[in-house]
Amino acid sequence: MPRYTNERAETDVSISTLPAGYYTSADYFARETDRLFRRLWLFVGRDDDVPSPGHFVTKRIAGAEVLVIRDEAGTLRAFHNVCRHRGTLLCTEAAGQVRGFVQCAYHSWTYRLDGALHRAPHMDKVTGFRVEDWPLVSIPLEVWAGNVFIHLGDPSEPTPSFRDYLDGVDTTFHNWRMGELRTVAIRTYHLRANWKLVIANYHECLHCANAHPQLVKLSHPLSGDNEPPHPTWLGASMDLMPGCVTLSTLAEPTRASLPGLDAEQRRRVYYYAMLPTMLLNPHPDYVVTFALNPIAPDRTDITCHWLMHPDEIARPGFDPGDAVEFWDVTNRQDWALSDQAQAGIASLGYRPGPYSNREEMLAAFDRWVIARVGPLQELGAGFGTRE
Amino acid sequence: MPRYTNERAETDVSISTLPAGYYTSADYFARETDRLFRRLWLFVGRDDDVPSPGHFVTKRIAGAEVLVIRDEAGTLRAFHNVCRHRGTLLCTEAAGQVRGFVQCAYHSWTYRLDGALHRAPHMDKVTGFRVEDWPLVSIPLEVWAGNVFIHLGDPSEPTPSFRDYLDGVDTTFHNWRMGELRTVAIRTYHLRANWKLVIANYHECLHCANAHPQLVKLSHPLSGDNEPPHPTWLGASMDLMPGCVTLSTLAEPTRASLPGLDAEQRRRVYYYAMLPTMLLNPHPDYVVTFALNPIAPDRTDITCHWLMHPDEIARPGFDPGDAVEFWDVTNRQDWALSDQAQAGIASLGYRPGPYSNREEMLAAFDRWVIARVGPLQELGAGFGTRE
Amino acid sequence: MPRYTNERAETDVSISTLPAGYYTSADYFARETDRLFRRLWLFVGRDDDVPSPGHFVTKRIAGAEVLVIRDEAGTLRAFHNVCRHRGTLLCTEAAGQVRGFVQCAYHSWTYRLDGALHRAPHMDKVTGFRVEDWPLVSIPLEVWAGNVFIHLGDPSEPTPSFRDYLDGVDTTFHNWRMGELRTVAIRTYHLRANWKLVIANYHECLHCANAHPQLVKLSHPLSGDNEPPHPTWLGASMDLMPGCVTLSTLAEPTRASLPGLDAEQRRRVYYYAMLPTMLLNPHPDYVVTFALNPIAPDRTDITCHWLMHPDEIARPGFDPGDAVEFWDVTNRQDWALSDQAQAGIASLGYRPGPYSNREEMLAAFDRWVIARVGPLQELGAGFGTRE
Repeated sequence: MPRYTNERAETDVSISTLPAGYYTSADYFARETDRLFRRLWLFVGRDDDVPSPGHFVTKRIAGAEVLVIRDEAGTLRAFHNVCRHRGTLLCTEAAGQVRGFVQCAYHSWTYRLDGALHRAPHMDKVTGFRVEDWPLVSIPLEVWAGNVFIHLGDPSEPTPSFRDYLDGVDTTFHNWRMGELRTVAIRTYHLRANWKLVIANYHECLHCANAHPQLVKLSHPLSGDNEPPHPTWLGASMDLMPGCVTLSTLAEPTRASLPGLDAEQRRRVYYYAMLPTMLLNPHPDYVVTFALNPIAPDRTDITCHWLMHPDEIARPGFDPGDAVEFWDVTNRQDWALSDQAQAGIASLGYRPGPYSNREEMLAAFDRWVIARVGPLQELGAGFGTRE
Repeated sequence: MPRYTNERAETDVSISTLPAGYYTSADYFARETDRLFRRLWLFVGRDDDVPSPGHFVTKRIAGAEVLVIRDEAGTLRAFHNVCRHRGTLLCTEAAGQVRGFVQCAYHSWTYRLDGALHRAPHMDKVTGFRVEDWPLVSIPLEVWAGNVFIHLGDPSEPTPSFRDYLDGVDTTFHNWRMGELRTVAIRTYHLRANWKLVIANYHECLHCANAHPQLVKLSHPLSGDNEPPHPTWLGASMDLMPGCVTLSTLAEPTRASLPGLDAEQRRRVYYYAMLPTMLLNPHPDYVVTFALNPIAPDRTDITCHWLMHPDEIARPGFDPGDAVEFWDVTNRQDWALSDQAQAGIASLGYRPGPYSNREEMLAAFDRWVIARVGPLQELGAGFGTRE
Repeated sequence: MPRYTNERAETDVSISTLPAGYYTSADYFARETDRLFRRLWLFVGRDDDVPSPGHFVTKRIAGAEVLVIRDEAGTLRAFHNVCRHRGTLLCTEAAGQVRGFVQCAYHSWTYRLDGALHRAPHMDKVTGFRVEDWPLVSIPLEVWAGNVFIHLGDPSEPTPSFRDYLDGVDTTFHNWRMGELRTVAIRTYHLRANWKLVIANYHECLHCANAHPQLVKLSHPLSGDNEPPHPTWLGASMDLMPGCVTLSTLAEPTRASLPGLDAEQRRRVYYYAMLPTMLLNPHPDYVVTFALNPIAPDRTDITCHWLMHPDEIARPGFDPGDAVEFWDVTNRQDWALSDQAQAGIASLGYRPGPYSNREEMLAAFDRWVIARVGPLQELGAGFGTRE
């Protein structure tokens, strides 16, 4: 298959950014919640966030309180983190470990790690009550190569196929054997920007010369190749400069390339977006994942995981700091720009502007949003409105 | 009259908690403000918060800025804390004392303590202006046994009878002679929970085993008796354990029982709710009152008064700390659970759950709310909606 | 022209303050934004805030992000502070200086100081793109006597005449030669009050006896003369007490009167409002300007500039502190009262109250607002509503 580079793209000054309301309207955000965040698989973290039975993480996303927990059989499961008795939040910590059961702090309703209700005190005189009728409400969960996805769709409708959702990305990144990698660092960022601006920022490197002086020394900003957009993901890659082996703050990083990579894969950094909430960023020697959490039209939280190979981690003096630092600095540069974009777009003077031919992925993403969520006009909100 | 215990209650798994909107909808909260907080008597504090002429307290409740002040004749009065000239807030402190008059800081309009306008500078050339036409706007106020209630109803409608509101509670607690008791401590708490969850928490002790280890040593959580629900109050009591004389952090508290109590009253702790904003909690040797202030669907402030007998207060070395500490600890346990319930109920995964037969008071309270405020569906808000 | 003093005004008890919704309704505030803040000239600061080419200030007002910058020819210009490419906020500091160009931090689109797009990297392959089509969006700007005004009206409609807006105020204050004065201090205040309450506070001195003990020693609060209200401004003045030469914290201030003033002008302090956002407050020896920034129904920011004559500034030991301190103290007294008025008006018990005959300017201002914005009832919001 011939590579599809943004160099070859045809474009026209009429292809422009979206009106402000797509980034500022609470009504449009509510519709995105219904039509994207509750209809597509959502990346929520890594398998090894929850290493062994009883370990759990919690997350509020798309209006749901989610509990991801490993059961006694070692299977990862997701539930609504809410007691079936009176709706009390069950696990209140961001992460932790329970022994054998999840117990509600309020009235001691006690659930097994597979979600079954084990014990409900004082319900014996309630006619018709059977513990088997009141398990935790399950949330579909799938793991691909250590990456954990959930689906918050209406339980009365069939859950869409996870394989269809992956749509070949698992094949593309097979050689990274991400399932074997381990998390070496986690960072969470709080943005004052719409989630779509984060994806827009990720899918072009025209801003790199200005914003990322340390990155452009290592990877040429115009070296990018884009994949044709897929229904659930966007993909691109950039070449490393000659002599450069990865993105790092070190002049001579010493981590080995991941064992399964071919020669070309060892010369590139990949920038994929598993829509709507995962950015997947594989390097020759490590992988960064970004879990987006859209909180409000103008607020997004992002949690990054840095993943490395166990052989490297096991080495004496192992230190992932150069990769963590590289992306932590780059992230902060990107998020500041995303916040600035939100502030400008939300103001009276914003008008849609023309995309460069090297921003074709952004225009494709805009079209994808409108195709799934519908145009702003359906809400009755006009061009450039601020709310 | 035969006692009516929750043991005897019949119940069924179909009797369940309310949909989320009752706890999260801003529209439903506005309707509660209209139909409950502005149609029923509201407990706002104790008579001795305002000990002598000129003493006042202020409170924002149900959208009103309320001034409770003792006039020169010693009568307690309530007014809207708002100048009749240009609407300026009059008293800005939570409590204080004025000498003879309330004067507006803006243009010196000056009111007597009975609300009459005494002086309005520079109004002499305003045709038709008469000081007698511009008193402070009065708020109906009643005091029962030192407990101060106000009524924020539409002034064009007759104020409902306070005697009807009490509906015999004054007889029930006659022996406590609460009017003679004095405030020994006041604490205010800020909850992230709907006001109805506070009342639900108060009216069952199934959570006590889990949440209140210090309480269940002194009073058996299943010893509760409930009164049949009244139109304006809910009542219950719990027995003290043998050998235990009150709820206290001390192993051997030494306060005498209140002088008027009979043998049974000295063996019980009472849990009454004067709907919608007072919890009344008499013990053999002290009383705790709770003044609920519903701020928003997910915010409630609560002010507790601890009341004791003057003879005890007069004793050398008097220290109410054991009773204050006991309930301060218990309150914090309860409020944390109420906040957790709010968080879970407000999330996507919440579904109404079944009440135990020992939670019949909660189901009765839910029915009371719907009977007075109307069902959520009237607002067009669907089941489980978050806003 | 006979002077028009408030002493002579006829008034009647039926002339009263506005219902609460004018001060609390988000819908009414949005309508004020459309019909006042985006249809009238807005005072945004002083000419010497931006002393030389490349100097700029930024301001968020009426939903717009505004960049005021001096171009290479020395002309002051205003633009929407938003890149034409993807809407990014351009200058993020409140004030600063650029060299020759404004460059977007995101993709390096670069604008000349006159707003023309100078360079747009990577747009060469975009069919139909011409730099001349994408200048910064200009905002009409006018300077009168060093006072900078902008107009945020719909660009498709003609901008109303600035001369008509001034409506003779420039003649009235000709002798102050404000264009020669220089800023000696700037202070910004954050109020919890509706912007209209600030103007109401400014246009009567009945509150001075109570609120401003230091002011009433220097200028009699009943010495005020009002001008007949004009379509775009309100004007008044107050006499200085005999022996008093200005408003100051010093017993014997030594600044010379401004050179052009006549004898009467040296005996008065002027209180003008250039509606809706400028208060202009000339004294014999200095001028204070107030730039109102209405943020929300119950929030207003105010920035004050103190202006003095260059000859004074040049004197050895020059210290403007007495004038700055005098108005800083007075401002804080006024803003506290404005906040208190907002709190009372926003509460359930507020009812419109009668204006004094010495508050005729306030009644005139109320009528001006309703004439331009329309009555509250058009929004369907009732009397005394809180939202």
